[in-house]
Amino acid sequence: MARPYNFCAGPATLPEPVLAQAAAEMLDWHGQGLSVMEMSHRSEAFGQIHHAALARLRELLAVPPEFRILFMQGGGLGHNAIVPLNIGRGGKVDVVVTGAWSAKSLAEARRYADAQAATDTGPGYTSLPDAASWRLREDAAYVHVCSNETIHGVEMASLPAVDRPLVVDASSHILSRPVDWSRVGLLFAGAQKNVGIAGLTLVFVREDLLGQALPICPSAFNYTLVAEANSLYNTPPAYAIYIAGLVFDWLVAQGGVAAMDAAAARKSQALYAAIDASGGFYANRVDTAARSRTNVPFFIHDERLTAPFLAGAKAAGLLQLKGHASVGGLRASLYNALPEPAVAALISYLHHFQRHHG
Amino acid sequence: MARPYNFCAGPATLPEPVLAQAAAEMLDWHGQGLSVMEMSHRSEAFGQIHHAALARLRELLAVPPEFRILFMQGGGLGHNAIVPLNIGRGGKVDVVVTGAWSAKSLAEARRYADAQAATDTGPGYTSLPDAASWRLREDAAYVHVCSNETIHGVEMASLPAVDRPLVVDASSHILSRPVDWSRVGLLFAGAQKNVGIAGLTLVFVREDLLGQALPICPSAFNYTLVAEANSLYNTPPAYAIYIAGLVFDWLVAQGGVAAMDAAAARKSQALYAAIDASGGFYANRVDTAARSRTNVPFFIHDERLTAPFLAGAKAAGLLQLKGHASVGGLRASLYNALPEPAVAALISYLHHFQRHHG
Repeated sequence: MARPYNFCAGPATLPEPVLAQAAAEMLDWHGQGLSVMEMSHRSEAFGQIHHAALARLRELLAVPPEFRILFMQGGGLGHNAIVPLNIGRGGKVDVVVTGAWSAKSLAEARRYADAQAATDTGPGYTSLPDAASWRLREDAAYVHVCSNETIHGVEMASLPAVDRPLVVDASSHILSRPVDWSRVGLLFAGAQKNVGIAGLTLVFVREDLLGQALPICPSAFNYTLVAEANSLYNTPPAYAIYIAGLVFDWLVAQGGVAAMDAAAARKSQALYAAIDASGGFYANRVDTAARSRTNVPFFIHDERLTAPFLAGAKAAGLLQLKGHASVGGLRASLYNALPEPAVAALISYLHHFQRHHG
Repeated sequence: MARPYNFCAGPATLPEPVLAQAAAEMLDWHGQGLSVMEMSHRSEAFGQIHHAALARLRELLAVPPEFRILFMQGGGLGHNAIVPLNIGRGGKVDVVVTGAWSAKSLAEARRYADAQAATDTGPGYTSLPDAASWRLREDAAYVHVCSNETIHGVEMASLPAVDRPLVVDASSHILSRPVDWSRVGLLFAGAQKNVGIAGLTLVFVREDLLGQALPICPSAFNYTLVAEANSLYNTPPAYAIYIAGLVFDWLVAQGGVAAMDAAAARKSQALYAAIDASGGFYANRVDTAARSRTNVPFFIHDERLTAPFLAGAKAAGLLQLKGHASVGGLRASLYNALPEPAVAALISYLHHFQRHHG
């Protein structure tokens, strides 16, 4: 039987070949007689896995040599603290608040810095003010953006050009489009959306930003120490690194980030077109130019229909379409591993449901 | 072909039935059509996994109701900072330094507290001074011990009675013996030794110690916030929680902690007896009363024999016996999942190697 389609915002769907390979290698990785789960992180076998994953990731995103790539713990919420601890210098930090995630980043940065909102589109979070209107302080240590807001479905079409180091939370759309590294100082992403499983965070840090952590930064989360130790300062989330490596291999086989970029455009355009053509039965409230290609929150005109919509979707093999608790309604997440037929099936179901409840 | 025996200090060997079940369920957990890797951490299915793991763990270790059990990220090194951030109150902290791990705990606690060594058995770390000799300050916020030093192979036979909250790093021997909770304020353990895979840390915290985190404590690592949200304050390392749950089920089927306690005694006594009976060919340098039942560092009288010993061991299906880089020599870790025939095979190999090189 075919597996159902999983629209969860994260932890999210993974490519079936990745799961199949992980299952096949579970008791014995490449004739070593060990599971990857059982390998010393300092062993030669794990070193191969680790270095291959790093090299693939650098290749997929064309990461320049002046950026170090770190495999860490902490998640997006953890790194909301870890970033200012490492590069905030106890000074000023400007945060572009465009959704729940950047709002959390601002709140957390205030523990360690004079942090302020450069703009704030809340509480609705349906727009993206032009960067020219942001209130940026010229002596800020950095400017923080969330380039895709998973909960509110707001995505920056491109990274802004600012004259301070730009920190980018790209958790929910990393590897769905190229990154303009010339605009980035530091980029981080939780793995549990487009990369693999929860418990791994990718950090890309430009080398000139290292070496300035506050003394209160925990050693385990000091980017400089972790970079010097090549992510082996302490035991990394080794199995999650292995799964990420399998996903990276799968991405290369699919045609890399360019292919994912094109697929994200096709998938999201088709879904937004279906929502917009529903005559108000379904609605996405985000400004057209700010709509996310990976997280599509939407609503039925009569919210009493949300529960029957979800029940029917589940019966049709379309899982985890419930909206985030803070927003309500519905949400479809269209990550790299979600195949295009899943979107076609969802659109068919949108039509079917409207015919019966419209 | 039988799998080789894996003596790694961590990430460490896992029960083969756990690996087999994880492989079998990889593409479809209990008919849900999803891998556990792909489940929302707030879904009903993951909720079942999470609550079952918590309940099993509470049962296995007879954890009293006044302790909260948290599933977190961070590892032992991370929690060396997270503990003083949560319960150090910026005051005094006394650390019992008996090996590399408690030495790291002391260094990290100094970032957040007036931390001092209550005793320090370094640099050799082969003994355990009686608790009566420790220099404890009566106004310390807590006393920290590492109840089993993974690198130096030093284990406390029982937890000390102190009149301040006792913090216990039990990473490398948790679930190998009962815990006297009447002596504990907070206990933590990285999962990658006796519990499962790297990236998960278990925290047991007495409720009266909550609510006093420093303002500089990152939210993601604030025990109070994590406890209030039942470990779902942010996305937990969900797959690692699932693997831990499978290990807990396996432990129950083996007879629980009492059975592991007895097996740890048998395995370690047999190995130490073989080392001690070698006439000095092999040596463990730790005081008899302080010897660890889970991590057994040992040396060959002529260190030039270490490399051929390891090569022959690998050929005999005995893996990852190399000592920690800071100590040298050899180390056998005898975790719960290491079967007793593995220790018998190692002892046979010790005899065999000595006959040929003695």
